[in-house]
Amino acid sequence: MIDTDIDLLKGIANQLRILSINATTAAGSGHPTSCMSAADVMAALFFGHMRYDAKNPHYYNNDRFILSKGHAAPILYAAWAEAGLFPTDELLKLRKFGCDLEGHPTPRLPFVDVATGSLGQGLGVGVGMALAARLDKLDYNTYVLLGDGEIAEGSVWEAASLAGVYKLNNLIAIVDANRLGQSQATAFGHDIGVYAKRFDAFGWRVESIDGHDIEEIIEVLSGTGLDDKPLVIIAKTYKGAGVSFLQDRDGWHGKPLNKEEAAKAIAELQPSARPAAGVAIPAPNKLPAPNNAVPAGYPPVSYKPGDSVATREAFGNALARIGETDVRVVAMDGDTKNSTYSEKFMKKFPERFTECFIAEQNMVSVAVGFAARGKVPFASTFACFFTRAYDQIRVAGISQANLKLAGSHVGVSIGEDGPTQMGLEDLAMMRAVVGSTVLYPSDAVSAEKLVEQMALTKGICYLRTSRPKTPVIYKNDEAFPIGGAKILRQNAGDKATVVAAGVTLFEALKAADTLKSEGIGVTVIDAYSIKPLAKDVIRTAAQKTNNIVVTVEDHYTEGGLGDAVAGELSSAGVKVHKLAVTSLARSGKAEELLAYFGIDAAAIVKIVKSLG
Amino acid sequence: MIDTDIDLLKGIANQLRILSINATTAAGSGHPTSCMSAADVMAALFFGHMRYDAKNPHYYNNDRFILSKGHAAPILYAAWAEAGLFPTDELLKLRKFGCDLEGHPTPRLPFVDVATGSLGQGLGVGVGMALAARLDKLDYNTYVLLGDGEIAEGSVWEAASLAGVYKLNNLIAIVDANRLGQSQATAFGHDIGVYAKRFDAFGWRVESIDGHDIEEIIEVLSGTGLDDKPLVIIAKTYKGAGVSFLQDRDGWHGKPLNKEEAAKAIAELQPSARPAAGVAIPAPNKLPAPNNAVPAGYPPVSYKPGDSVATREAFGNALARIGETDVRVVAMDGDTKNSTYSEKFMKKFPERFTECFIAEQNMVSVAVGFAARGKVPFASTFACFFTRAYDQIRVAGISQANLKLAGSHVGVSIGEDGPTQMGLEDLAMMRAVVGSTVLYPSDAVSAEKLVEQMALTKGICYLRTSRPKTPVIYKNDEAFPIGGAKILRQNAGDKATVVAAGVTLFEALKAADTLKSEGIGVTVIDAYSIKPLAKDVIRTAAQKTNNIVVTVEDHYTEGGLGDAVAGELSSAGVKVHKLAVTSLARSGKAEELLAYFGIDAAAIVKIVKSLG
Repeated sequence: MIDTDIDLLKGIANQLRILSINATTAAGSGHPTSCMSAADVMAALFFGHMRYDAKNPHYYNNDRFILSKGHAAPILYAAWAEAGLFPTDELLKLRKFGCDLEGHPTPRLPFVDVATGSLGQGLGVGVGMALAARLDKLDYNTYVLLGDGEIAEGSVWEAASLAGVYKLNNLIAIVDANRLGQSQATAFGHDIGVYAKRFDAFGWRVESIDGHDIEEIIEVLSGTGLDDKPLVIIAKTYKGAGVSFLQDRDGWHGKPLNKEEAAKAIAELQPSARPAAGVAIPAPNKLPAPNNAVPAGYPPVSYKPGDSVATREAFGNALARIGETDVRVVAMDGDTKNSTYSEKFMKKFPERFTECFIAEQNMVSVAVGFAARGKVPFASTFACFFTRAYDQIRVAGISQANLKLAGSHVGVSIGEDGPTQMGLEDLAMMRAVVGSTVLYPSDAVSAEKLVEQMALTKGICYLRTSRPKTPVIYKNDEAFPIGGAKILRQNAGDKATVVAAGVTLFEALKAADTLKSEGIGVTVIDAYSIKPLAKDVIRTAAQKTNNIVVTVEDHYTEGGLGDAVAGELSSAGVKVHKLAVTSLARSGKAEELLAYFGIDAAAIVKIVKSLG
Repeated sequence: MIDTDIDLLKGIANQLRILSINATTAAGSGHPTSCMSAADVMAALFFGHMRYDAKNPHYYNNDRFILSKGHAAPILYAAWAEAGLFPTDELLKLRKFGCDLEGHPTPRLPFVDVATGSLGQGLGVGVGMALAARLDKLDYNTYVLLGDGEIAEGSVWEAASLAGVYKLNNLIAIVDANRLGQSQATAFGHDIGVYAKRFDAFGWRVESIDGHDIEEIIEVLSGTGLDDKPLVIIAKTYKGAGVSFLQDRDGWHGKPLNKEEAAKAIAELQPSARPAAGVAIPAPNKLPAPNNAVPAGYPPVSYKPGDSVATREAFGNALARIGETDVRVVAMDGDTKNSTYSEKFMKKFPERFTECFIAEQNMVSVAVGFAARGKVPFASTFACFFTRAYDQIRVAGISQANLKLAGSHVGVSIGEDGPTQMGLEDLAMMRAVVGSTVLYPSDAVSAEKLVEQMALTKGICYLRTSRPKTPVIYKNDEAFPIGGAKILRQNAGDKATVVAAGVTLFEALKAADTLKSEGIGVTVIDAYSIKPLAKDVIRTAAQKTNNIVVTVEDHYTEGGLGDAVAGELSSAGVKVHKLAVTSLARSGKAEELLAYFGIDAAAIVKIVKSLG
């Protein structure tokens, strides 16, 4: 601790309490008592311990702070205001339309790296940041403030386990154990020994303290980085701490004080409150900036026409290839790297690869943490297992995180392993993520080119890859811009436009051959960019086939390619006939299943013939 | 242990190994070595410990067994074949199209309660079953076999924590710690003390054993139910155990043996293998059957026209109401019961309510466990937090589980709390679940009636409820069949058909009033059943408005109501103009946000006028 005495920090803690109360009372909603339990920890961290440039929250060697208990947003905002980033008056605009001081933190604010408020996600992001610090040889620490209620989330234990495995002694978790959840007391109340025992079992160094004793807080924080374990501080606190009629009382979760109550509370706090103005916040060490340069280009792709390569393998090839010139690229997997082929990257760049074991939620959070530090993280597993991390992906959407996901083994075409292993909902899930890009290559060349596009496109990008080998149909210099599509067959007089992607594209091409032999022409489009969809290409083609479109996809019938085309183009008069998996999938050979579920060439031939 | 000696069980274990090898070799795929590590535990459980009627796997007081490490399916199938349920020859049809012995277990088989194979889900289901046993006053035990790799899944620790909190001494977890994951060794290898310490910290009684020592296995199993804690048995095992060239070797995950290898392996195992024929499996105790009767009817709904009631509150009212006559109904929540109003049910039927704390994955698994025991479980939380459990919901779809989910606080209409708390992807997510029913009431009466429909409809049903109060617009005796819709406004010459649900229905009605005052008629449809959609009602109405349809929804633009209508009806020539949330949501007042995101009455008026 530098330059600051304990009494001053106590005063700042009360100042933060007052600001949190005022902001939530002005907003008419919010969680003042959840702020108050954390006030002493926040004051100690922001004004007595962390090293950061308060005028430049993005500075690369600033200590990072993640408010995992995002509902305590007002005290985070208050801390940055007190640190001098913006006037404290702004806090009174909390939760108002147009103000970036939202109900829960989002990266619309420069001092927020990731959105929080869906509990249990902060620690995994912290793991990613701590790993990024190590990779970049920076000495910033990452601090994550959790509530005790959110400790029930399994994602916390996924993160805790990985932090222990990788001995992240630059990661510090603080548990604000204020005993009270939203609707009742937490399972363990103030028996904080339970949390201590758990974190210890997960490989952490544990300090259990009185979370309202600034001296104790500062003392345990000073032990940051002491040994080779991450540090958790279990802080026993009281919800509403500092105000007699709020402290440790039921019924005050998520409830602002009315004006009279606020005045009464502030009267209790004011006498010992002190603004932080003038406190010297220690500057971070000056170390070389990390190299997060966008590359001038990528090494070339080289397949031969007629090669037969699964798109999942092409993904692995691409990752290893672009990693050569794109130093930003890092990768992680959930013990499927030999199936997703991310191991090709790992073998070439072991220090840029993180094995996350079978814990997909945390894998995504780790990736989000890397993304927040300027990296381009590619996280891979079976497509179906990304459903495990849908909340993390959704919140990454809110963070507008530069997250890249590659889901392999999609659809019934995986065959014998059966439905639990088949990604059949992933297009629906990923399309609904705000601002997402959803890509679905059919051959190795397009898969490789789309991986390049992912690395060069900001935001969440999802690549859907298939298990079976498919023939290479594109030339190595073909471009695959996001939002594009390829017209593979088209002749005057075509009866219908068949829109496909992935394995069904080859079924569409087979169907086109069969139909052609019977004198029926069809246009065939490779819709490799599911979102954004190549609306204009498809509409223009459809218009030439009397607006008749057939979509065919290895995905359940809701929310996938068919719904995308219909949803985008029905208003233009396009008539979409969907072929998709319409009932519960099962085990079998790929070709048997494509036939059984009506998404093979024969099914396409049949529907095209039936349409008039 | 009754009637069985250790040598016989050892012989049965090898028999199960042989059957697993033969089945996977015949299939040409599968995970024989993952079966072999578990063979001694399986033999001990099925032929030396568990009480069950092998001819009637569904018998209500049978001990339950969940193979959480679902990729070891062949040994589960082998155990039931050896127990006499079906001929062992059937095992050679493993993974073949049309055979229910799929790559991973599904309830297509009578002895499988829930699909497994997405790792880390079995223990939570076991918690639900153990709670159901307690509720039904049955003395069956629930056994869950986990792999060591899947212990990394946070969902395991959510389940472990709740089992400890509720002191489920009728729940037994066995960890098959065979050291090797799919792509590399697990994080902790054979250091099984790590797992022991963790389960101990989570409130379990722990036994660490040699998982290939049948005597030891039987001995620790005999301690089932001894005290008031759940029991975990950490079994140190070897992948491929029993065969010299497989045991503890890398590179054998998910790989069948070729014929020569299989013959060599079987030559090692055969001498000591013994079939289970003739082993007396102890019968379960005869106790009164649980009452899972479908009720003759429900108490009436009673609202007054003009009442203003949020659909989320109506959900709580309905749950408490139908619980009176429907004894199958149980409920669970994730510490949001005061916001979802499930607390209304809890207060009336505390013994039928399970507080799951902030652990949504496990909450859904617990519900699936109750469903597997004949209950009708309603799990509730904020809609957005069901994204946390999407994998569990997806797999429940594969199980065709009788699961009821109620997601509150949907859309931007929640207002100030901001995007992390807004359910804006839930329709896309839930529509894509195979066999699901997706319901979205607008007023209290329809919400209540739809809760009744959920209880009476088999399978996964999702109810989408809103935060704001909305006026009661239906009479108490109105029926709301699944797959229906209500035409609220319709006149000859209407210019467009507006399809809405939830809060936007009231915007549509306002818009209709405004347009009417300007001489423009619109049809307004309440699409309370999103899936199945009332296709015929909407198509017929649309045809009368020149096929012009406007959908308006408080959901992101992908995969929701608009895509549903377009996806179902574009082939019939219906032209769908979608109003939905098209960019990242933010904090503000509900009405400000409905306006900003273009889903309010003014936006509807504007688009209707623009169409022609």
